[in-house]
Amino acid sequence: MINIKKIAKDLFNIKEEIPSRSGGKHEISIESLIDRSNYQDQLPDQFENLESYIDHTILKADASQDDIKKICLEAENYQFKSVCVNPANVKFVKSIVNSTIICSVIGFPLGANDTKIKVAETLLATEQGAKEIDMVINVGLLKSQKFDDVFEDIRAVAQTCHENQAILKVIIETCLLTEKEKVIACLLSKKAGADFVKTSTGFNSSGATAKDIKLMRDVVGPKMGVKASGGVRTKEDALKMLKAGANRIGASASISIVEN
Amino acid sequence: MINIKKIAKDLFNIKEEIPSRSGGKHEISIESLIDRSNYQDQLPDQFENLESYIDHTILKADASQDDIKKICLEAENYQFKSVCVNPANVKFVKSIVNSTIICSVIGFPLGANDTKIKVAETLLATEQGAKEIDMVINVGLLKSQKFDDVFEDIRAVAQTCHENQAILKVIIETCLLTEKEKVIACLLSKKAGADFVKTSTGFNSSGATAKDIKLMRDVVGPKMGVKASGGVRTKEDALKMLKAGANRIGASASISIVEN
Repeated sequence: MINIKKIAKDLFNIKEEIPSRSGGKHEISIESLIDRSNYQDQLPDQFENLESYIDHTILKADASQDDIKKICLEAENYQFKSVCVNPANVKFVKSIVNSTIICSVIGFPLGANDTKIKVAETLLATEQGAKEIDMVINVGLLKSQKFDDVFEDIRAVAQTCHENQAILKVIIETCLLTEKEKVIACLLSKKAGADFVKTSTGFNSSGATAKDIKLMRDVVGPKMGVKASGGVRTKEDALKMLKAGANRIGASASISIVEN
Repeated sequence: MINIKKIAKDLFNIKEEIPSRSGGKHEISIESLIDRSNYQDQLPDQFENLESYIDHTILKADASQDDIKKICLEAENYQFKSVCVNPANVKFVKSIVNSTIICSVIGFPLGANDTKIKVAETLLATEQGAKEIDMVINVGLLKSQKFDDVFEDIRAVAQTCHENQAILKVIIETCLLTEKEKVIACLLSKKAGADFVKTSTGFNSSGATAKDIKLMRDVVGPKMGVKASGGVRTKEDALKMLKAGANRIGASASISIVEN
């Protein structure tokens, strides 16, 4: 059994244990840059209107403007939570959608861009209309145990999001991480002020699992969001993720999820 | 049989056919932003010292600094043409290599970033020490037949490279394109002032084929470079690409290629 509290204590060199005000199985305050103690709990409160949890997603490189337009109109019709597109498409999407939130992806899908570029890309996407930003962590730096650098990468993007009225989801790419690295990535995201942690890009070897969602929820507690993405293709998949603790789903098969 | 000349005439709306000075089977001048007529031919002139053609490559998201250091030292020892890394790693690589050229990738691997971001990323990579830049075209815009926008994306990055003493290779991601789109992508790259066209990111469904290399060489002529990448794992693979017209190879199995 993984000891989240011990990992948190070692990671942040915590000597004096002050109880966490916003929760999570680390059970001690990790002094996040955002005080979430007055936030509402973000656990799913219903399992009926699945569309309200779904980021309707089209990220493949060869998606044409016609393909993207189709996804946007579906998002409007089905009242999905957001439409999630690559940054080059945000401006185009803004010209199509009315009520749908625009979500875009940063440092995607490898996360191996300089922090300055992730910040510039976030700023431009928010200027062009994105209200939600899904960034990929620098997995290589995490593997190299350069935790301060991973933290700073997330912190800088979180700050840029919040200064521009957007929220930040941090993609930790679970399929590349050990259990301990998953916990560390979630702790760093929480401390750095992110609004969500998210499992996967959908461009690597595998996607979301209920086990990972449960672990991520255990780490971040009830006051942050947890997004399941990658391989969520059916209503059954989606419900499994929500019941494991996710409160957001990334999917391209969104219509099958809500209609079946 | 694909008619490269007709595609070029239609694409650039060429009424008066002036002979091309730098070659290519379009056989007419497409008035590139770079005059290459005095350039040396870039066809491979020998098939022995394969290391001189190889960009020794490590682009996976979870490459640690130890992994990258290993690749750098291999590149120095074997005298590979360059070491090719993600942009977040350029600074680190610069602190390790002496004689090896640093190559980095831009808008990688989806190409779906705003041109402004590709330019900023190129500028930063060159400031940090990259002398070669491999950018991915905006495939979605190509599919949407927004050829002016695809051209401008390449042109802006090419200009940034050349102002900063770097060369530009344009990744057209052949596996996503029709034959006609491959020709168009090469023509746009040539006209926009790129130094190379390159087949693949290695992150999509398939990589370089001899057939694509021959087509790309036919389009760009002898004065530009052609890089084969994705799935080139053996000496036999590499020789096949060079004999089809490539003068650069992207590979991670570079040592097997030169030792076997």
